[in-house]
Amino acid sequence: MFKNEKLIRLALEEDIGPGDVTTEALIEPDRVARAVIVAKESLVLAGLQVARGVFATLDPAMSFETSFQDGDRAGSGDEILTAYGKLQALLTGERTALNFVQRLSGIATLTRQYVDRVAGSNVRLTDTRKTIPGWCRLEKYAVKIGGAYNHRFGLYDGILIKDNHIVACGGISEAVAGVRNNRPHLLRIEVEVSDINQVKEALENGVDIIMLDNMGLNDIHEAVRLVDGRALVEVSGGVTLDTLPEIANTGVDIISIGALTHSARAVDISMRVVV
Amino acid sequence: MFKNEKLIRLALEEDIGPGDVTTEALIEPDRVARAVIVAKESLVLAGLQVARGVFATLDPAMSFETSFQDGDRAGSGDEILTAYGKLQALLTGERTALNFVQRLSGIATLTRQYVDRVAGSNVRLTDTRKTIPGWCRLEKYAVKIGGAYNHRFGLYDGILIKDNHIVACGGISEAVAGVRNNRPHLLRIEVEVSDINQVKEALENGVDIIMLDNMGLNDIHEAVRLVDGRALVEVSGGVTLDTLPEIANTGVDIISIGALTHSARAVDISMRVVV
Amino acid sequence: MFKNEKLIRLALEEDIGPGDVTTEALIEPDRVARAVIVAKESLVLAGLQVARGVFATLDPAMSFETSFQDGDRAGSGDEILTAYGKLQALLTGERTALNFVQRLSGIATLTRQYVDRVAGSNVRLTDTRKTIPGWCRLEKYAVKIGGAYNHRFGLYDGILIKDNHIVACGGISEAVAGVRNNRPHLLRIEVEVSDINQVKEALENGVDIIMLDNMGLNDIHEAVRLVDGRALVEVSGGVTLDTLPEIANTGVDIISIGALTHSARAVDISMRVVV
Amino acid sequence: MFKNEKLIRLALEEDIGPGDVTTEALIEPDRVARAVIVAKESLVLAGLQVARGVFATLDPAMSFETSFQDGDRAGSGDEILTAYGKLQALLTGERTALNFVQRLSGIATLTRQYVDRVAGSNVRLTDTRKTIPGWCRLEKYAVKIGGAYNHRFGLYDGILIKDNHIVACGGISEAVAGVRNNRPHLLRIEVEVSDINQVKEALENGVDIIMLDNMGLNDIHEAVRLVDGRALVEVSGGVTLDTLPEIANTGVDIISIGALTHSARAVDISMRVVV
Amino acid sequence: MFKNEKLIRLALEEDIGPGDVTTEALIEPDRVARAVIVAKESLVLAGLQVARGVFATLDPAMSFETSFQDGDRAGSGDEILTAYGKLQALLTGERTALNFVQRLSGIATLTRQYVDRVAGSNVRLTDTRKTIPGWCRLEKYAVKIGGAYNHRFGLYDGILIKDNHIVACGGISEAVAGVRNNRPHLLRIEVEVSDINQVKEALENGVDIIMLDNMGLNDIHEAVRLVDGRALVEVSGGVTLDTLPEIANTGVDIISIGALTHSARAVDISMRVVV
Amino acid sequence: MFKNEKLIRLALEEDIGPGDVTTEALIEPDRVARAVIVAKESLVLAGLQVARGVFATLDPAMSFETSFQDGDRAGSGDEILTAYGKLQALLTGERTALNFVQRLSGIATLTRQYVDRVAGSNVRLTDTRKTIPGWCRLEKYAVKIGGAYNHRFGLYDGILIKDNHIVACGGISEAVAGVRNNRPHLLRIEVEVSDINQVKEALENGVDIIMLDNMGLNDIHEAVRLVDGRALVEVSGGVTLDTLPEIANTGVDIISIGALTHSARAVDISMRVVV
Repeated sequence: MFKNEKLIRLALEEDIGPGDVTTEALIEPDRVARAVIVAKESLVLAGLQVARGVFATLDPAMSFETSFQDGDRAGSGDEILTAYGKLQALLTGERTALNFVQRLSGIATLTRQYVDRVAGSNVRLTDTRKTIPGWCRLEKYAVKIGGAYNHRFGLYDGILIKDNHIVACGGISEAVAGVRNNRPHLLRIEVEVSDINQVKEALENGVDIIMLDNMGLNDIHEAVRLVDGRALVEVSGGVTLDTLPEIANTGVDIISIGALTHSARAVDISMRVVV
Repeated sequence: MFKNEKLIRLALEEDIGPGDVTTEALIEPDRVARAVIVAKESLVLAGLQVARGVFATLDPAMSFETSFQDGDRAGSGDEILTAYGKLQALLTGERTALNFVQRLSGIATLTRQYVDRVAGSNVRLTDTRKTIPGWCRLEKYAVKIGGAYNHRFGLYDGILIKDNHIVACGGISEAVAGVRNNRPHLLRIEVEVSDINQVKEALENGVDIIMLDNMGLNDIHEAVRLVDGRALVEVSGGVTLDTLPEIANTGVDIISIGALTHSARAVDISMRVVV
Repeated sequence: MFKNEKLIRLALEEDIGPGDVTTEALIEPDRVARAVIVAKESLVLAGLQVARGVFATLDPAMSFETSFQDGDRAGSGDEILTAYGKLQALLTGERTALNFVQRLSGIATLTRQYVDRVAGSNVRLTDTRKTIPGWCRLEKYAVKIGGAYNHRFGLYDGILIKDNHIVACGGISEAVAGVRNNRPHLLRIEVEVSDINQVKEALENGVDIIMLDNMGLNDIHEAVRLVDGRALVEVSGGVTLDTLPEIANTGVDIISIGALTHSARAVDISMRVVV
Repeated sequence: MFKNEKLIRLALEEDIGPGDVTTEALIEPDRVARAVIVAKESLVLAGLQVARGVFATLDPAMSFETSFQDGDRAGSGDEILTAYGKLQALLTGERTALNFVQRLSGIATLTRQYVDRVAGSNVRLTDTRKTIPGWCRLEKYAVKIGGAYNHRFGLYDGILIKDNHIVACGGISEAVAGVRNNRPHLLRIEVEVSDINQVKEALENGVDIIMLDNMGLNDIHEAVRLVDGRALVEVSGGVTLDTLPEIANTGVDIISIGALTHSARAVDISMRVVV
Repeated sequence: MFKNEKLIRLALEEDIGPGDVTTEALIEPDRVARAVIVAKESLVLAGLQVARGVFATLDPAMSFETSFQDGDRAGSGDEILTAYGKLQALLTGERTALNFVQRLSGIATLTRQYVDRVAGSNVRLTDTRKTIPGWCRLEKYAVKIGGAYNHRFGLYDGILIKDNHIVACGGISEAVAGVRNNRPHLLRIEVEVSDINQVKEALENGVDIIMLDNMGLNDIHEAVRLVDGRALVEVSGGVTLDTLPEIANTGVDIISIGALTHSARAVDISMRVVV
Repeated sequence: MFKNEKLIRLALEEDIGPGDVTTEALIEPDRVARAVIVAKESLVLAGLQVARGVFATLDPAMSFETSFQDGDRAGSGDEILTAYGKLQALLTGERTALNFVQRLSGIATLTRQYVDRVAGSNVRLTDTRKTIPGWCRLEKYAVKIGGAYNHRFGLYDGILIKDNHIVACGGISEAVAGVRNNRPHLLRIEVEVSDINQVKEALENGVDIIMLDNMGLNDIHEAVRLVDGRALVEVSGGVTLDTLPEIANTGVDIISIGALTHSARAVDISMRVVV
């Protein structure tokens, strides 16, 4: 997809700069070889197309083989992608390709853990906007590959009245009234609340989604009971793998989890050249 | 610094897209306010200038106050930056500014933990090239703020003969000979080795730095003894906070730790508007 | 606002190229003067900030005076902006500044005509995605200045199942089912229909908005009756100033009008240098 | 041609943003289909290559068939381009491709109307610099396709001393003297005049082209008589389809018409997917 | 001028990359100092604004003093610019600023030599399109500063029918006829010829300028006599400082000299920090 | 290589602007032809890939034949590249392709002259950072093709303590101490000195390379004797073809020569279309 091109080129320019001094000194430009990318731990794969894009940018004739696709689980030792082409391109692109796949698979793998914890439930798990600047689209892609859903991508594709908006407007009612007539008609209205009184106020204002921000389990139960299907209920704030199941059991509709992106670590993947 | 401008603008364009529909619907363009950025956990601060840059891009007249600077430790509740300017700019820039500071401070905080673990030692801790594509310079800045050192930035500012180069060349001796006469004279030569025999071969070839890749503690001791100051010894691969002290005690010169960047999580920081 | 900078610079580079040969041959670089931008017909003003941005890019010390703001109506002869600064900047930027203001005011002026035609009604007039590539944000800004609303900005901030989607999916029901579980929860679902049967099918599938595409007045009446408030009803396709009032009288909620952007002409505005 | 790539990518990024949420939710990535672009009114076609470029950017394997080329007249119902490739690419690129072809064909169609009005005459019709910022090259291409000529593209490829230059220099003689010795020798000198006295002054200064700005028919006749072939005579300002023939009959050499670009509306063209 | 910004930033990014390791290791970020740029040989100065732009990009508060302006002659030891600001910015920007000024002044100095050689003559000396890709505008600026004129900037601001065009068209007459009716009316027609017969053919076709390409002195004389003022005569090809005067004496109108740009060397200029 | 793409496109956009008016007026878009690029003097070839890239950007189907590769010596009249493709692309790309090859070959040719002058010696000749802003990578590539070595590319891939750093730090010892602990461990330390006392001070501080800046032949001899292999010795400043051999005979390790880039002239190469 043409939209990854910019970030791939940015990444390669950043890493190669004026030249890969080691590889250029050692490898003949025309020499070809095979490289195998191997999982070093159990993971959910994401970013195969980006890795291919990295190598193909350096050698347009690069060819690839794999029996995996994004979303597949790979175990330690699994060969997740084989690339065949210019050896200089393989060695020069190695770290960049791995950096992409390791982070994206890290997010997909962590996401899958959360998703598995609520298997069988109707709750929808989503990401947040706590993404790496410049990586929003890619990280949210990895979240989907992991089995969760995307919350809004940015400030433009969803109305979310947050605590600071409420403070600035003087209250939930004032804020909701302010957006109701001014927003694009294809966007719903979500309000962030922090206690039961605000839940009631949001309900009275007829919002579409109520986000319970960092509220306790009892309050979540109470909120679900109060809302009673008249709005979607979203829980947000400090959700962990441990607390997830009981939150899901309250019957909320959506649980948004910043950790999917802001706390994902890179999974271990390496590349081996075969000559 | 002009080099952060591009990433700041990229980040704002990514998040704002055609417009912040919530804020634009609610807040008068000319209204001004104060916002306070607050640490929600103990952390080592990094990225204050980037956060200021985010808000100043949205409102060139934005003014700032702080008693902190990058590298300072902040505790939960500390007000690390106050910004005064257009309220729209504060609300629209909030998430982007926080995303920068949370990740950079996350790296600095994790780095500081590693650095503190070897306090009093002469060993130099460094990062690796396992950085987020597009963020290399910023992440390595945060590592320095955390108290560690930068390894090479990319493929252009250091000769590092890695396992795949050795395989491709047919051996360490062949590889070292290949770069010795072709590289820029201001760059040293480092070779990655995986056992004691390779340490010996590297030494015989007169390399400047020998990187012990994923070698056990006994082999590290043996390598230090063999090298005996004739080259710098670097340890790399799977170093954790727990294993760090005993590795440092072997007398190696450098320990490079991918986790400083690839496993850092965003620290918790939030923003509060005051009206 | 920083997001106009790119288009302003693109426009100036396009028009100036390697240099304004006439102005550079005639005018001393340091000479300053005053220029007055004057409406030559009755219009609704839009784009004042962009015009200022054009001149300020060429001369950062340029100063401005005006008693108008975007959205104001100006009559023929009204001085809508006075700029004082480098004479070279005034002459070189003249056409670019006027091209921006003339098109944006043209859209705002045409939009105001449509809006005035339904004064007193509750119907919401909106634009479409029939905008000049590269100008989406600016044109939709002008539509708002003219008094209408924005439909979605792009393919990312609204679910709109159009005729071709329905053909591809095999029917409305299939298409609605397909998006219901896969879309971001902050986006509503709109379906484009072309006859009463499709209105019924859309209703049964519980969509949020039903767009009547190029349907006759009788069918629109029938659709409004059928829907009876269970969804928003939008009319689209070939709406003109003449047909607008009777469509509005049917009680539909939204009328989207491609002509606001795709048929707006530049209004007449000129610039006069005063020496 | 590589020069359209930037604007095509800009347009697609603008419209797709982080993703086409409707199409991605409904269509399998590998599904292929055919789409037919159909004229909905009589028009002169312009922009076929740009439309192909839009789809080919989204799917490099897209193939095309057509019996039309730019400049051909198409009638309502004519299939002007068939594209075969990824269905997602067809649906996602539809609006962007149409927006390009609709505006460019709109300009070509309007231009052809003007050109037809002076068929048999030797007069040259040209555009002006009243183009959409960012679209200068494309709009002037459409003007040529419509059968007219291009005036200068920007401030760099022609000397045109306009009213504001004359005011700034203190008179036509002073201005012409100023440019005569300073301009590139491959550029002619044109002067804008507004009455017969200025025509005489321009003639005495030996300019190459005299532009009669908003002068009446009698004055145009008088100017042509006075000039008597010693310079080209250009008429500019408020020319309409109705006034064009009698202006052409005065024997002027060039008539420049801002309306070709600033008042062109998008012609009606649509796309139909065939499955 | 905003058009230099891009090249200045490109240049600084190229030279600084991820950081100036020497300066950052040695100099406190807040330390300020003075630097003096000094001519080390006699030269004609060009590029002062670009040098200021380099330092101001690195430190927006940088201030400057100078008694020189572009076009002035400076002798060895003359202090041509003093900058006061951040010491890091001075040291980091030194080479980039000097590289700009040294090349631009090199072109201006060489140009002045040529111009001085024909002092008192009416001949116009011009550059060619033999410029460094990316530097066209700057190099042609330096040529003007040196006292010569600019030929066309690119392929868009002048008709020049060259040898390969004539071969492709089958002759001068065919080529001239081809462009006469298709070119913008503000552009003159120049034809490159290589012998007297072609001069005659060009004359018969009424071209505006005849370029004598690499013709001998006798042929130049003959051509001037033949043309007799009915066209401008330009000499091009292999003109040196030695051959220039006698060519000028033939009475040709224009002599274009590729050497002004393609053979200019950087003049010697250095920078001295004062602490 | 993808990294040349940007500069090639920049160069073509600069030269073509809105269009090649001569070629577009004369040549049918679909016409194909052959063009031969011919050396007009003896030269060392550099930049063949860039020239191919220029033509391939304008016509992706362009094909090429040559018996030369970069680094080969070509004599006057040698056909160094034949291109077959769209005639418009050949004519429009001619000057840009030649400008690249002429400058790069000019650098390679001049470099080869210097290299030949020290044939048989062990001394390493290098370039400096006196390169054209924007062209650093390409010029240093040409230097390598010519047979010399690259010094550092920028401020990021080598520690070089220059005169101004020493002034700012208060002495060599202070400066060396400052960088020793702060620099990346893969970079060596070089110090610029201007007399024998500074050589001694540098030696005592254990630097890796000592650059003798503009020192006389006697001092160079003395420095080599003093250093006696404990550091590399580099000579820099005003080295010419004439002075090179005796400097090389002093036994220094490296001679850096700004003239390789800052004084290279474009070699004479032309293109001939065959129809």
